[in-house]
Amino acid sequence: MRYARISAGGRAVWGRVGELDIELLSGSPLETPDVDVIGTVPREGADWLPPVVPPVFYAVGLNYPRHLAHVGMPVPERPEVGYRANNALTGHRSPIVKPAEVTGRFEAEPELVAVIGRTLRHATHGEARDAVFGWTVGNDVSARTWQHQDRTFWRSKNSDTFKPMGPWIETDVDALMQTTTLRVNGETRAEFATGDMVFDPFDYIVEITKHITMHPGDVLWMGAESVCPIEPGDTVDVEIAGIGVLSNPVLLEGNES
Amino acid sequence: MRYARISAGGRAVWGRVGELDIELLSGSPLETPDVDVIGTVPREGADWLPPVVPPVFYAVGLNYPRHLAHVGMPVPERPEVGYRANNALTGHRSPIVKPAEVTGRFEAEPELVAVIGRTLRHATHGEARDAVFGWTVGNDVSARTWQHQDRTFWRSKNSDTFKPMGPWIETDVDALMQTTTLRVNGETRAEFATGDMVFDPFDYIVEITKHITMHPGDVLWMGAESVCPIEPGDTVDVEIAGIGVLSNPVLLEGNES
Repeated sequence: MRYARISAGGRAVWGRVGELDIELLSGSPLETPDVDVIGTVPREGADWLPPVVPPVFYAVGLNYPRHLAHVGMPVPERPEVGYRANNALTGHRSPIVKPAEVTGRFEAEPELVAVIGRTLRHATHGEARDAVFGWTVGNDVSARTWQHQDRTFWRSKNSDTFKPMGPWIETDVDALMQTTTLRVNGETRAEFATGDMVFDPFDYIVEITKHITMHPGDVLWMGAESVCPIEPGDTVDVEIAGIGVLSNPVLLEGNES
Repeated sequence: MRYARISAGGRAVWGRVGELDIELLSGSPLETPDVDVIGTVPREGADWLPPVVPPVFYAVGLNYPRHLAHVGMPVPERPEVGYRANNALTGHRSPIVKPAEVTGRFEAEPELVAVIGRTLRHATHGEARDAVFGWTVGNDVSARTWQHQDRTFWRSKNSDTFKPMGPWIETDVDALMQTTTLRVNGETRAEFATGDMVFDPFDYIVEITKHITMHPGDVLWMGAESVCPIEPGDTVDVEIAGIGVLSNPVLLEGNES
């Protein structure tokens, strides 16, 4: 099943995504399995929102062996996690706005995202598997000059629109057996085996929940093997086969509309 | 006015806190000024929740000149912000649970917290002032061994119960003219001028909103000048005069109930 959130009549509504239409739902499938269909809209032209606004937004770095070799970093000995901020989220087809002040490398990072569906603490690997409600696609847009200048990732990775996520949550896919592809203006710029990770999402969930309660709607962004530069005027697509394509235009601040 | 969130009848309810009673409200004063009183409960024995669950949880470090001198760090040249995670929040009187694995220094950090009441971007200093709905008190509990071992603050500062906040949001106080006091078992362990900061909350809001939209309910924890160790069996109070006293017992994991 594919679940999305769209803007309909000025509010955020959950939907079940079909080939041509989206069935609008009475509530969140993350909160209750008893959701009713309250209407239908065509999929074409839908106003896609981030498929979930997480209580906690976890993000993993340094998680692909080939990326680590490329940047000359040692392979981490244990799964460690950081955070991103909800203000930066934006949906499928919404613009990534490059701040006017940003100089230097401005890059897309194609990532697999696990969406948590249960409250869990002290999870086993099996419980971690069962707790993943579904999978979506993220683009961890990064301004490298700020990333190197600042003490934290606050503006380099969390400026408004720097975290496109979507288009939907796919519940029926073996996410770690897929291929991640990054395209700019239709041209492939990176392609890697989605599951070729140092630690997989379940390893992270086991480690996190030793100390932390995870909740329905929490997201875990899994890092990227390869990145590529993007510029205003580009359209950047992140595709994970079996999940979907997250597509966003890039605009320069001041030229948003 | 003092606004709190309490657990009543199994759900989170906003309340207006008086000397003896709490008036229960029909909605969040952060979302609408039109809230009705739907009941009253005695203040004594109330089950206090964190006064807000923020869309984004901002936290400032290295913000008191005397603290910087003490740890031998240079004074920051610009306001930079980090993040904490909502799972770690807990309310007034709820226990801080020290994980069984934690060794080394386990410390309380008494902090002023600004609660944002408006959506704002590109704020002036005056708009930043107007956008603060009120003030509360935070305790940025930290496990130093983890803080030094880990790449991020994920478990050192974000394990469950490590972020007590409360007891309420005070809307009518000149927060920067107050005194912050940290007490353990009734004994004063730190006391400092709340407003003796390198950058004040409004400086941070101006800087953050250059790149980031802040939203109602976002919180900004302002850092601490002094800290002190805490141990299971202790009761730790953070008082900011004119706002309130946030009091939490400390328990060892496994002895929570």
